[in-house]
Amino acid sequence: MLKVGIVGGTGYTGVELLRILSGHPEVSIRAITSRKEAGMGVAELFPSLRGRVSLKFCEPAEASLERCDLVFFATPNGIAMNQARPLLDAGVRIIDLSADFRIKDVAAWEKWYDMTHACPDLIAEAVYGLPEINRDKIRDARLIANPGCYPTAVQLGFLPLVEAGIADLDNLVADAKSGVSGAGRNASVHTLYAEAADNFKAYGASGHRHLPEIRQGLSTAAKRAIGLTFVPHLTPMIRGIHATLYAKLTAEADLQTLYANRYADEPFVDVLPPGSHPETRSVRGSNLCRIAVHRPQGGNTAVILSVTDNLVKGAAGQAVQNMNLMFGLPEALAISHAPLLP
Amino acid sequence: MLKVGIVGGTGYTGVELLRILSGHPEVSIRAITSRKEAGMGVAELFPSLRGRVSLKFCEPAEASLERCDLVFFATPNGIAMNQARPLLDAGVRIIDLSADFRIKDVAAWEKWYDMTHACPDLIAEAVYGLPEINRDKIRDARLIANPGCYPTAVQLGFLPLVEAGIADLDNLVADAKSGVSGAGRNASVHTLYAEAADNFKAYGASGHRHLPEIRQGLSTAAKRAIGLTFVPHLTPMIRGIHATLYAKLTAEADLQTLYANRYADEPFVDVLPPGSHPETRSVRGSNLCRIAVHRPQGGNTAVILSVTDNLVKGAAGQAVQNMNLMFGLPEALAISHAPLLP
Amino acid sequence: MLKVGIVGGTGYTGVELLRILSGHPEVSIRAITSRKEAGMGVAELFPSLRGRVSLKFCEPAEASLERCDLVFFATPNGIAMNQARPLLDAGVRIIDLSADFRIKDVAAWEKWYDMTHACPDLIAEAVYGLPEINRDKIRDARLIANPGCYPTAVQLGFLPLVEAGIADLDNLVADAKSGVSGAGRNASVHTLYAEAADNFKAYGASGHRHLPEIRQGLSTAAKRAIGLTFVPHLTPMIRGIHATLYAKLTAEADLQTLYANRYADEPFVDVLPPGSHPETRSVRGSNLCRIAVHRPQGGNTAVILSVTDNLVKGAAGQAVQNMNLMFGLPEALAISHAPLLP
Amino acid sequence: MLKVGIVGGTGYTGVELLRILSGHPEVSIRAITSRKEAGMGVAELFPSLRGRVSLKFCEPAEASLERCDLVFFATPNGIAMNQARPLLDAGVRIIDLSADFRIKDVAAWEKWYDMTHACPDLIAEAVYGLPEINRDKIRDARLIANPGCYPTAVQLGFLPLVEAGIADLDNLVADAKSGVSGAGRNASVHTLYAEAADNFKAYGASGHRHLPEIRQGLSTAAKRAIGLTFVPHLTPMIRGIHATLYAKLTAEADLQTLYANRYADEPFVDVLPPGSHPETRSVRGSNLCRIAVHRPQGGNTAVILSVTDNLVKGAAGQAVQNMNLMFGLPEALAISHAPLLP
Repeated sequence: MLKVGIVGGTGYTGVELLRILSGHPEVSIRAITSRKEAGMGVAELFPSLRGRVSLKFCEPAEASLERCDLVFFATPNGIAMNQARPLLDAGVRIIDLSADFRIKDVAAWEKWYDMTHACPDLIAEAVYGLPEINRDKIRDARLIANPGCYPTAVQLGFLPLVEAGIADLDNLVADAKSGVSGAGRNASVHTLYAEAADNFKAYGASGHRHLPEIRQGLSTAAKRAIGLTFVPHLTPMIRGIHATLYAKLTAEADLQTLYANRYADEPFVDVLPPGSHPETRSVRGSNLCRIAVHRPQGGNTAVILSVTDNLVKGAAGQAVQNMNLMFGLPEALAISHAPLLP
Repeated sequence: MLKVGIVGGTGYTGVELLRILSGHPEVSIRAITSRKEAGMGVAELFPSLRGRVSLKFCEPAEASLERCDLVFFATPNGIAMNQARPLLDAGVRIIDLSADFRIKDVAAWEKWYDMTHACPDLIAEAVYGLPEINRDKIRDARLIANPGCYPTAVQLGFLPLVEAGIADLDNLVADAKSGVSGAGRNASVHTLYAEAADNFKAYGASGHRHLPEIRQGLSTAAKRAIGLTFVPHLTPMIRGIHATLYAKLTAEADLQTLYANRYADEPFVDVLPPGSHPETRSVRGSNLCRIAVHRPQGGNTAVILSVTDNLVKGAAGQAVQNMNLMFGLPEALAISHAPLLP
Repeated sequence: MLKVGIVGGTGYTGVELLRILSGHPEVSIRAITSRKEAGMGVAELFPSLRGRVSLKFCEPAEASLERCDLVFFATPNGIAMNQARPLLDAGVRIIDLSADFRIKDVAAWEKWYDMTHACPDLIAEAVYGLPEINRDKIRDARLIANPGCYPTAVQLGFLPLVEAGIADLDNLVADAKSGVSGAGRNASVHTLYAEAADNFKAYGASGHRHLPEIRQGLSTAAKRAIGLTFVPHLTPMIRGIHATLYAKLTAEADLQTLYANRYADEPFVDVLPPGSHPETRSVRGSNLCRIAVHRPQGGNTAVILSVTDNLVKGAAGQAVQNMNLMFGLPEALAISHAPLLP
Repeated sequence: MLKVGIVGGTGYTGVELLRILSGHPEVSIRAITSRKEAGMGVAELFPSLRGRVSLKFCEPAEASLERCDLVFFATPNGIAMNQARPLLDAGVRIIDLSADFRIKDVAAWEKWYDMTHACPDLIAEAVYGLPEINRDKIRDARLIANPGCYPTAVQLGFLPLVEAGIADLDNLVADAKSGVSGAGRNASVHTLYAEAADNFKAYGASGHRHLPEIRQGLSTAAKRAIGLTFVPHLTPMIRGIHATLYAKLTAEADLQTLYANRYADEPFVDVLPPGSHPETRSVRGSNLCRIAVHRPQGGNTAVILSVTDNLVKGAAGQAVQNMNLMFGLPEALAISHAPLLP
């Protein structure tokens, strides 16, 4: 049994991680920390976990995280970078679900996240935890930077096109829509039900933190700098990301075959038949990314539709996928549930 | 491996049954019938099942259901009663998720369902599939009448009170609220998104088909006829039933202890601590019923709050629970997933 | 033109009041105060009012409210009671949309609202602003206690029955459901979209602040103390209250006629034909209360269904109705818009 | 008083038209026809109109539409083209809310709508009813082709850019999101609440009927053929369209000023301050289009955000705006209500 600790865990990423790990046959959750909720039972805060998780939130100092095999950080940005080193030094491996180790360019990270990075050297070591790109590196990693929710859906959607180099890589467009859980479980006005329901809006149209992360990933895949316009939107649903991707084709190609081949061996990427329109609910609660490829009116614009559950493949599920890889477990263990539909 | 057939299965109860059975380690789904969709792949209709269910819907005549160990009817009312006998004669056991065998009083059934019953004698044999009342009879049953969604939530909520005989049983009130999936996956105007969203309404206030079913169950438990006012409401959510139950107490009792004791050994009924308000999402996608007991201002009115997922404990999950009991499998096998929250 | 001031106004009651008043031909809004948002344009905070409201929020000290004819308090509880007297002394009339002046029993108010009341003597003077009961008193009032949202829907639903004295008044049951805007526009976790959507729950089952208000109103109407069990629920919709009311009849009566007659001359109460089920959306954005009367299976239990828009008839619309009465304007002026459906 | 008739009117466009016209001081609705609902009171079908509309639906033959000054067609495609001529011959003016007269290229219309057009000559006469382009022609028109919902939001968003000729007009991208009311009030499975709630999907990615309409309008404005990729999406909300528009700039320009100037005199187009993100709810129930202009990271891609209420500016409200223009009434009469927020 893997001894696992969780830092944070009172947010949606945390409760989703607990949902998945509480059903994982090879995992024993040893501690979950929260300064704010220390002493409260996890199942008091999240009644959905009654009968499944008997732990209480505890103070970080009492968690003995250094005795774990693996620690997940399900914390706001800026926490993991301050706590990672002593754990690594103690031989603990880390999966950070926050953004602290995702951007290799320290200056870019500091600009977009408006903080000084506490341990830039670990950024270099960190492996970006997108198994569809870095599966082998993930197996051996000590420190995983678990990808953001938008970056997962957008990168998986663009990858085959970008790797093949058959599109105008200076003018990619990603129009992405997220459910409200992506904004986290923090008291705020703009994500209240009465604000976000029966409503639709873009946000961050002039620049969003996930832009440099996506650009980095696609540029690496393209082996050149790519140009991307990325506009996220808030959709009145709880879970789900839908990325609609536009690229101008620069060479002839059978896109359907290109995509099908690229993901043929991927357990969590499902390329739909021609003419499909994936629905976010078709992956609700599951670790899947479903993708469809269109070429409207047979023209030279490719339209890629990519859907994920932002809390699973976009966060906690992908983290467990990475954990499974790191510890030599079957990659799909405990994350192969069927989506919940309707 | 159990050989299982499904009649119907293009509705929400059907897709939920497929979701659960496709993850059941002791079940092999042999056939699923639909006249309307015959020839179509199940995963074409329900993309959430891509990679999990490779069957196609087939014509009833081609299904060879008589070779199954068990057949589920996930059909509209009036179908199972016409097809049950030859299957039973062939040694097949049946779980009927429709209402055909739920009401022992044939005349009452015919009045509420506005049909002539095709095989009244089987009604007598049928076992009402609420394990919390009939667990032992279910084990040996050939024919299970799987309870309705409202009746499950309302009966589990009232049972301890009614069995204890400490309430005014002539004037029980059940104010029940259901998600829209309870209305089924049929094209209709009143359950369109633009009709049912951001809206709340009662329906069937003068009489609903689940009333005689609930009355029968509670009268049996009370060993006398009970009087019940039952008003169902349509709530803008997909899944979930919330029953708010009112009873005038006629004797002193520690309600919390009464409920805790009654359900102490029940794997799928969770009595919450005093002062709780169960949320429907705390059971979303799970087979649980969570119950809280209140006595406002310490007066003589008991208020019981009971929540279930109408498609799981209220339909497909309870059907699989019954199947597990009938075939000597662990009762919770394949229906012990954590609820999906948020 | 009436010179009107608004204290508070950054919440949902405030924006709704602004929506209505900005279209009122006899009203000039002179000032709207908010300590927190002072200096910000109202239409910056609420873009729906762009082009309609050019005011900025201002500091209370700069508002010159004493020069207004009327001041609305759209504030949290506990504010109006501290600011009412000097305004009244200056000859300004007041409509308080908070709860400060609703409960005549000061001790009861202080218990339920957990505050010491700042000016108990004004409570005696305040007129409870439910026009269907107090129309004449409202015309002459200096200080109106505008009713709560639940109390409006529940009282209008029970009134004819209670006034007629034909029900068991010791055991009334009000099962009420509210949209999430009823919880206000304050940052909080439990009303986040991802918490409140696709979910249903009761709250305050053991006691809610609107209970004493409803009890007071119905006891006055009954000319005796009534007994009421009141359970509110949170429904995933933005606006709307649906009250389902249960009463045991103690005398024969034609309920439909009783209700039709009681409200025959009321411009904002609509008694539906027999067999109806009012939908909350049928009053969305309007000042109407629609009511239907049922008697299930012809028995001795009356079931009354009463719907309102909690922000209009349950708050801002009723406040403007009161204003119209107080200043001799046509009662329906500026509040006779059609409901928005779908 | 204008004598107005409505053909159709049992759908969402119809009920919205009735909501607006029932409050229009210069309109008398003489007849509303529906073969299916003939004899039923309008307010029976739409209880929101109780007390406002006393008409019954009638058979077309009994409607005496030829005595009206104006007839609205709120019918499915293919009806108006068969009934327009005799009405026009009788001197009745027509506003067709369906697509029958929107596309000047008859062959293109017949291909996209898969019908033979019944009166191609009237297409030439019909005026495309987008006042922001055709105000003067509308005043004198006998026959108005009222624009589609997507085309209104997309054209208003692109117009200033296209008219100025400063973008790559061969590669425009319109990523549009619509509320579910856009799909109409017809019984169908894919728009059921339990299908469309908590879900997001694209549809018609390979080609949608509104594409040729948008292309025609923008090509006319550009005085050259434009190239457009248009992908519509279904969003879980009732009303609202959000168009996110992408264009590569080919010349320097102050976009904010360009847009502000273009729409300076338009009563129903509101250009937001720099950095804004319009929300669909900020126009809910109103005839407004709100637009914001972005240029992410100061690059050469323009991102335009355009929102409307699909049933108002996208259908019934725009139709009444056209009516007001045609009959010399104030353009904003009866369509200047404040949006309903929240």
